[in-house]
Amino acid sequence: MLFPRAAVVGIGLIGGSFALAAKRAGLVGHVTGVARSEATRQGALKIGAADAVTSDAASAVAEADLVYLAAPIDSICGSLRTLGPHLRSGALVTDAGSAKTVILDAARALPPTVTFLGGHPMAGSEQAGIASARADLFAGSSYFLTPTPDTPADAVETLSALVSGLGARPVIVEAALHDRLVALTSHLPHLLAWALCTTAGEAADPAVLAPFLGGAWRDVTRIAGSSPEMWSEIFRANFAPLQSAAASLSAELNAAQAALDLEDPSAFLDWLHAARTAHERLRPS
Amino acid sequence: MLFPRAAVVGIGLIGGSFALAAKRAGLVGHVTGVARSEATRQGALKIGAADAVTSDAASAVAEADLVYLAAPIDSICGSLRTLGPHLRSGALVTDAGSAKTVILDAARALPPTVTFLGGHPMAGSEQAGIASARADLFAGSSYFLTPTPDTPADAVETLSALVSGLGARPVIVEAALHDRLVALTSHLPHLLAWALCTTAGEAADPAVLAPFLGGAWRDVTRIAGSSPEMWSEIFRANFAPLQSAAASLSAELNAAQAALDLEDPSAFLDWLHAARTAHERLRPS
Repeated sequence: MLFPRAAVVGIGLIGGSFALAAKRAGLVGHVTGVARSEATRQGALKIGAADAVTSDAASAVAEADLVYLAAPIDSICGSLRTLGPHLRSGALVTDAGSAKTVILDAARALPPTVTFLGGHPMAGSEQAGIASARADLFAGSSYFLTPTPDTPADAVETLSALVSGLGARPVIVEAALHDRLVALTSHLPHLLAWALCTTAGEAADPAVLAPFLGGAWRDVTRIAGSSPEMWSEIFRANFAPLQSAAASLSAELNAAQAALDLEDPSAFLDWLHAARTAHERLRPS
Repeated sequence: MLFPRAAVVGIGLIGGSFALAAKRAGLVGHVTGVARSEATRQGALKIGAADAVTSDAASAVAEADLVYLAAPIDSICGSLRTLGPHLRSGALVTDAGSAKTVILDAARALPPTVTFLGGHPMAGSEQAGIASARADLFAGSSYFLTPTPDTPADAVETLSALVSGLGARPVIVEAALHDRLVALTSHLPHLLAWALCTTAGEAADPAVLAPFLGGAWRDVTRIAGSSPEMWSEIFRANFAPLQSAAASLSAELNAAQAALDLEDPSAFLDWLHAARTAHERLRPS
């Protein structure tokens, strides 16, 4: 067992799935689940994700060898800034936030007696909440770990072992590169899906649009069903990389339209072929 | 039987699926399939989509009561401009192109002895070719018919009955409105998917990006596997509506980023909630 006592602060879809998977694999012993909502706390007990629950993070982390922060990003940052005095000496603190640079900044408030290593499981769905938690949520997914030059090597090894035990693939990456690439492959697609829904919704009544919504629409906009509260915090936390990704995409769209506008169709066809080649090279495994 | 003899010009995924479904439903009798490729012609015979095949559209349409043009858009327009002298008097001519205004323009070249009614089955996939044809391709899908004020009412009724017999839902819509809305719900999503692949592909090596490609990426970019040749013609044929849709989307993305950049998170959260509401109203049935 890697961690006899863990505290999961924010025991929803991600935190609850982590606890279920880590307990099932025998990597974590006693889990205290922290949630503001009574329904979430009872849900975590009911599915066996937590052995004890509380709304008080400070008391939950006092005995914990592992502190797993799985609330929305602003709450993770808040916990990192306030929980320091309550942490057990030698505790390993990690999180599951989708933007790592702002979280690393907030983690500077932690005392030197604990170790922080940022994490990001590339899992989840447009569903949220403890009721959707399941032990295999991370199976086969990437799980990013973002050490700094100051992170002790044994913390990286231990968390990598834990992540592998969840069935995920640990990927060690620098936080800034993580943020830049996740902006392109996840945050920008979410923003585009929402912008597309708004644009179409403003163009015509839903009843008029209904027959025009086929398979392409369904797939491209599926993620627009995600939580606005959660994603508002992700977008704000990763604003500069997202803005840069959006600017690159706009430039690409402009290039495509300029090529389309030429008499000679070959320039646009070349653009499309290059785009499809990129698609083939970028297929999820 | 609505049409004892039909000619399907361009008997690939759409034309072949149409022939299979129409023959199975007893709505069409003898089908002559037209394709330039010998492999496509043999494929059409093999799966029973055609009773006879040829590479010569002029001879194929000479006896046909129904002429179904299912090649890429530029070929449809070419057929409309050249086949007129070869058509049987009283024939009904229709097509399956994704942009209707340019096709209506080309159909002006047809002689007054035949009737033209444009169509667009909202079906298909990133696969193409006769080998992927199947009788249920149109089942449950919208099938747009775009009459003009000059189109005889009985042609609309007959084609509506045919389309219903394929298992599709006939939707009568003016060509310009069709083109504007399909630009938003299908053409722009395709362009975005390709632009996203190019943007990400230029940002990092595929091996570096690989762990960042999750479910959002997979769903949003699936349609980027579609045929560049086919889509190049669709984008060119529907350029003005696509450009307008892309401009609206860009404005929406800029509005989102401006809201994100404010100190107060409520403006962006409002934008996201409105976008998710639009998504809920625009779910494919």
